[in-house]
Amino acid sequence: MKKNVLIVGAGGVGHVVAHKCAMNNDVLGDICIASRTQHKCDAIIESVLRKNHLKDTTKKLYSRSVDAMDIPSVIQLIKDTKSEIVINVGQAYVNMTVLEACIETGVVYMDTAIHEDPDKVCENPPWYANYEWKRKDRCAEKGVTAILGIGFDPGVVNAWCALAQKDYFDTIDTIDILDVNAGSHGKFFATNFDPEINFREFRKVWTWIDRKWVLQKVHAIRVDYDFPVVGNCPVYLTGHDELHSLSKNIDANSIRFWMGFGEHYLNVFSVLTNLGLTSEKPLKVAEGVEIAPLKVLKALLPDPSSLAPNYVGKTCIGNYIKGTKDNKPREIFIYNICDHAECYQEVESQAISYTAGVPPVAAAMLIARGEWDVKHMVNVEELDPKPFIELLDNMGLPTEVIEKPATFTAPVIESL
Amino acid sequence: MKKNVLIVGAGGVGHVVAHKCAMNNDVLGDICIASRTQHKCDAIIESVLRKNHLKDTTKKLYSRSVDAMDIPSVIQLIKDTKSEIVINVGQAYVNMTVLEACIETGVVYMDTAIHEDPDKVCENPPWYANYEWKRKDRCAEKGVTAILGIGFDPGVVNAWCALAQKDYFDTIDTIDILDVNAGSHGKFFATNFDPEINFREFRKVWTWIDRKWVLQKVHAIRVDYDFPVVGNCPVYLTGHDELHSLSKNIDANSIRFWMGFGEHYLNVFSVLTNLGLTSEKPLKVAEGVEIAPLKVLKALLPDPSSLAPNYVGKTCIGNYIKGTKDNKPREIFIYNICDHAECYQEVESQAISYTAGVPPVAAAMLIARGEWDVKHMVNVEELDPKPFIELLDNMGLPTEVIEKPATFTAPVIESL
Repeated sequence: MKKNVLIVGAGGVGHVVAHKCAMNNDVLGDICIASRTQHKCDAIIESVLRKNHLKDTTKKLYSRSVDAMDIPSVIQLIKDTKSEIVINVGQAYVNMTVLEACIETGVVYMDTAIHEDPDKVCENPPWYANYEWKRKDRCAEKGVTAILGIGFDPGVVNAWCALAQKDYFDTIDTIDILDVNAGSHGKFFATNFDPEINFREFRKVWTWIDRKWVLQKVHAIRVDYDFPVVGNCPVYLTGHDELHSLSKNIDANSIRFWMGFGEHYLNVFSVLTNLGLTSEKPLKVAEGVEIAPLKVLKALLPDPSSLAPNYVGKTCIGNYIKGTKDNKPREIFIYNICDHAECYQEVESQAISYTAGVPPVAAAMLIARGEWDVKHMVNVEELDPKPFIELLDNMGLPTEVIEKPATFTAPVIESL
Repeated sequence: MKKNVLIVGAGGVGHVVAHKCAMNNDVLGDICIASRTQHKCDAIIESVLRKNHLKDTTKKLYSRSVDAMDIPSVIQLIKDTKSEIVINVGQAYVNMTVLEACIETGVVYMDTAIHEDPDKVCENPPWYANYEWKRKDRCAEKGVTAILGIGFDPGVVNAWCALAQKDYFDTIDTIDILDVNAGSHGKFFATNFDPEINFREFRKVWTWIDRKWVLQKVHAIRVDYDFPVVGNCPVYLTGHDELHSLSKNIDANSIRFWMGFGEHYLNVFSVLTNLGLTSEKPLKVAEGVEIAPLKVLKALLPDPSSLAPNYVGKTCIGNYIKGTKDNKPREIFIYNICDHAECYQEVESQAISYTAGVPPVAAAMLIARGEWDVKHMVNVEELDPKPFIELLDNMGLPTEVIEKPATFTAPVIESL
């Protein structure tokens, strides 16, 4: 039994994590939410209280300010708050400092996105080997449970891969992870999570084909797929975190990630990228000030959490998996539908933050109950998927499975 | 007889002014080119020498660095260089400080664009009344010749209005100034002059209709016109400097300005503007740095002078004028065609800089010869247009006139 949760990060995902932790604080204990900007934490706490989500009112829900890039500060915060579980949903730059603090103090670590070095973009695959897996042995030595990438994608989609391998297939040929947001926020343009991290994702595409890494251009390969509920949507081959562990842990020939983009999004993205406005490299303006264009762009774009009140429509994220069972070909689509307005109704958030924020809380409950407290570093597909998927069914992210779904047909993808 | 020219500003227009002054230095005397960044002046001088454009090699061509926002520095520079004619082609923010220095020292002042306050955009019309005309009396008292807006547009187009009123019409109903660049620079996106000044132009549209100022939206009213030489091009109702003096000095019911834009330009502009990237208002990024997005955009866009070597195609700028002569209706199109590659061949510049840079040198020659040395402040249409237009015919900017041109038909334009 582990208890008391420290949430690092007060963005859109941290907001959902705080709500769901509060709704389950009889299991999770005291909850502290910490960020560089404490008033963002306090705004989240206000939302939790407004929604009456503090299940056990004898437990604490409070805020702290912290510089998550500074290991001693995070160590001190973990000790001060007596937290045994850290859910890190801060910017991807802080992952390794927060992980180090967890290893040092012997507490559970979780994150929802891969670590990034601010000065590097789309490093060589597998990405987890560059930072996270270098700490695998130290986690094992110290008996530290570290669960990497336990959001939705990565996260739930990895658990579905494990489930598919276990229950649905004897052999797997391809896994196509399809992520489409068929919702509408009504703004001229906005990203659904931190624009900085969002745009850094779209530089090049590393994908896993015939058990090899293949490099492709961004937004170059399109497939139109007839999704359940949300209907026909174009998706584009995209690089994504989960491929960098699934390629190692799941026995499949090809594992690819596809993201939905509308024409307007692609047009704006193309203009911004062609002009260099998505660049993380600082430049000097005529007046001598040095600044990375991406930082300016981020300051101009709507705060993703501000989109929530008016967001309508649904997301669909699913794994299209092709293989054999009992020597017969099998194809399934295992997916979740999430409705923006329902998320707002429940936790004052939109579906993108919701789908990323609920899973780490489910994982925290499995750890609190001892089921997932594995005392070493794992990616999600290495854990037993069943209790996780069951828990999510009751926490707002139900899993659906279609046998013989609409066919997903990718073109031949060759390396550049 | 006045002599010795001080050129303030070493951008694309300053480049052309320096070439044309050097080619006429038997009349104009010594030439100094000064800017905040002296090496830009030196690069221009290298270009002039490379092209063997120093007609009288006993005359000097040299550079100085100057802060043109600082009146005493400009006064000192005028005295040091013994300049009697100042051609100001620096950023529009320095006009009033350079003018003050000219009034103080009693030398000739010229510029090619209206003064701008960095913190204000598209002020109330007529713009000249906000800054320039407030110095009219002092110019007259000191006997200072100040010619405002003596580029192409404003500049040559104003002289054409004066010519039309004098020789072609008894009454003028409408003047439509049409400016189209049918050239291609081969870049994803670039502005043809300082992007900062360029984008500041496109906030709102002040236009002169039925002898009243009318406010309209940018890029909202389109007309397709079949231009001579360059053919059919879309142009959009745009606000522009010359309307702010022509409305006072030319007896016409309506005077409007139209600029050509392609679909790609409008798309990029729309994305940038909708996202706030063309804003001159400083914002603070998460890391605390304060910067105006427009400054960052400017730093990212190609330097307009870098476009010159690969620019192909032509510009067409002309006045479509409708009125009566001898009690009969008359319509003329009075225009110039300028070829980007020919400009580069001659002075290593593109046609946009060329069309703006040649006219002030023609004016300097008319002043040196005494013909335009009027000893007070004027807009171009207040001067005798004939010697100016004749001189330009021989300096690379010939004027053509078509009687009964293709019809230009504007829709009814109402105030917002």
